[in-house]
Amino acid sequence: MIYADNAATTRIDEDALNLMIELQKKFYANPSSGYKLSRPIKKILSESREKIAACINAEPQEIYFTSGGTESNNWAIKNLSVGKNIITSSIEHKSVINSCLAAKNYLNSTVTFLPVDKFGRVNPYDLQEKILPQTKIISVMFANNEVGTIQPIKKLAEIAHNHGKIFHTDAVQAVGHIAIDVKDLGVDMLSASAHKFNGPKGIGFLYAKKSLNLSPFHDGGSQEFSLRAGTENFPAIAAMALALEKNCAAMKSYAEKVTACTKILVKRLKESNIDFIINGDENRLPGHLSLSFKDIDGETIMHRLDLKNIYVSTGSACNYGQVKISHVLKAMKIPEEYVSGTIRVTFGRDNTFDDAEKIADAIIKI
Amino acid sequence: MIYADNAATTRIDEDALNLMIELQKKFYANPSSGYKLSRPIKKILSESREKIAACINAEPQEIYFTSGGTESNNWAIKNLSVGKNIITSSIEHKSVINSCLAAKNYLNSTVTFLPVDKFGRVNPYDLQEKILPQTKIISVMFANNEVGTIQPIKKLAEIAHNHGKIFHTDAVQAVGHIAIDVKDLGVDMLSASAHKFNGPKGIGFLYAKKSLNLSPFHDGGSQEFSLRAGTENFPAIAAMALALEKNCAAMKSYAEKVTACTKILVKRLKESNIDFIINGDENRLPGHLSLSFKDIDGETIMHRLDLKNIYVSTGSACNYGQVKISHVLKAMKIPEEYVSGTIRVTFGRDNTFDDAEKIADAIIKI
Repeated sequence: MIYADNAATTRIDEDALNLMIELQKKFYANPSSGYKLSRPIKKILSESREKIAACINAEPQEIYFTSGGTESNNWAIKNLSVGKNIITSSIEHKSVINSCLAAKNYLNSTVTFLPVDKFGRVNPYDLQEKILPQTKIISVMFANNEVGTIQPIKKLAEIAHNHGKIFHTDAVQAVGHIAIDVKDLGVDMLSASAHKFNGPKGIGFLYAKKSLNLSPFHDGGSQEFSLRAGTENFPAIAAMALALEKNCAAMKSYAEKVTACTKILVKRLKESNIDFIINGDENRLPGHLSLSFKDIDGETIMHRLDLKNIYVSTGSACNYGQVKISHVLKAMKIPEEYVSGTIRVTFGRDNTFDDAEKIADAIIKI
Repeated sequence: MIYADNAATTRIDEDALNLMIELQKKFYANPSSGYKLSRPIKKILSESREKIAACINAEPQEIYFTSGGTESNNWAIKNLSVGKNIITSSIEHKSVINSCLAAKNYLNSTVTFLPVDKFGRVNPYDLQEKILPQTKIISVMFANNEVGTIQPIKKLAEIAHNHGKIFHTDAVQAVGHIAIDVKDLGVDMLSASAHKFNGPKGIGFLYAKKSLNLSPFHDGGSQEFSLRAGTENFPAIAAMALALEKNCAAMKSYAEKVTACTKILVKRLKESNIDFIINGDENRLPGHLSLSFKDIDGETIMHRLDLKNIYVSTGSACNYGQVKISHVLKAMKIPEEYVSGTIRVTFGRDNTFDDAEKIADAIIKI
């Protein structure tokens, strides 16, 4: 089997899994309890927070554990936008877009969508033009989940700050895959999901500057500095921290490997004279390839690869079952004769050059 | 070691843990993906939903997986209360109380708190009196986390429905411990948390009738019937379903055992002529004992038991570090000379009669 859908989810790191199992077996007390049984668990939580903070150059007290990227995005978007304007891009993940629309429908917010160019890039000039006095928060994703395009986050955050606005980035696809320094980038909030960087499912985090005065998204007990209530899922939290630490330590070599995989695949497809285009910007996530083939259906390609035990995606997994063209490809104005024939091949650290060759062979045969 | 703080959290069931580990190792695809790798995972999700539904006599499509009881309560309370009145009890868990207060502060809701009697019981007559035309939702917990008192849920739900109102119950302490039939009780929504019934942490569910037209609390992808976005944590979901199924199957024998434990403890304390009272109603959670000792501090008792490797609580774990008297004991008007000396001993299925004897011995010595 060849799994090349690492943007949908990744295999959990062996050490992270073993740590999670070990902690599940060893401890089970409630981390919030006052007796000594809970002390090592409190320590696990604070060490995990420190590890994660170190990976993105944040302060530990700015990391809030959540149930994943969707929760982080919902929190970041909805919390500060009541009655205000939100600016976002037109190619965000649904957890951002639908949070914005929910804020519009239920919280009296207004939403401004920034266009993207044919490479999926937001133009900082467009942001500059669209900021309103009532704009409160600007949310632009770090890297797109369908085409991998990396946005000019530092520049966008700078514009936001020049206007006194808050800048959030959905970095679910980027964390653990490309170097992120929140201080250098100047972002105020950042969302991440563990299962996208070889951590477990059901856990993620929100980085948020203390000065934002966030209110809780999950109200209740005093966990997570009284900002995210609920008994902490410490085995998953510790596994997330370890997975991120390992991915960050090996980031350069993983990136080189998966980039080489994409080059092999593209070279082979080009040699075979297949009519296709590569979507997204040159500056995109390592290992990420969105390919549009002329006059064929992406679903057909995916299912025929599936029969050969090769797993790729047609778009984002969340869109499965919806036959319409994704909002991302639409916003990028991918030519009509290509857009329906889009597949997403995303290599991960487990993939080999041979996988890339085999995917190329299989596509060429189709 | 004697762990008798099962209302704070429980040890994960061995089979549930093994299943979680097995699924973590065996599968990792995104359940939402369109290829065959995801098919067995989709099946795991639907089977887990069926199992859980069967345990509370719900329909599978009325079960929504969440990250735990806190999320379920936040969703249930905040979703339908915008601009409306919420009626709740004065002894709810903080995830309900603080969700109500957040609705008041940010969603233009109003909140009515029902009093309780000295046993911690809500009087259905009080509810009847307090319902307003603008009341939208009534939320009363199934069983209290500090004193174990079980509320007259069926009667309260009936009153709510007679007035055309929605009835929610936070059943985090009850699910898996006492028989629950949502159809017989007539509740519209019910919150549960896996780690309270020997399932894993970080997972729970909300039961909600389809007719309620809930909107998502986590906006995003189309998971959970488009009502709770986020990649499903299927290993934890399957483990939760198994843990609940096992606890429900053995419910009667567990209840008998833990009730016997409480009887042993109370009998021994009474024989020793210690001055104490038992808080809560006769009709309370099996294995649940809230004891208030005269003229001594609950924290002191807890810490001295801790030194003997006996783990009990002073109140709800979420209140740790706050020296003030809990809102539950205050609402119940526990006499002043006793209230500070409160500890909570909650037996679970792992406890033995010998544990009860040893806890009694240790308390008597203190």
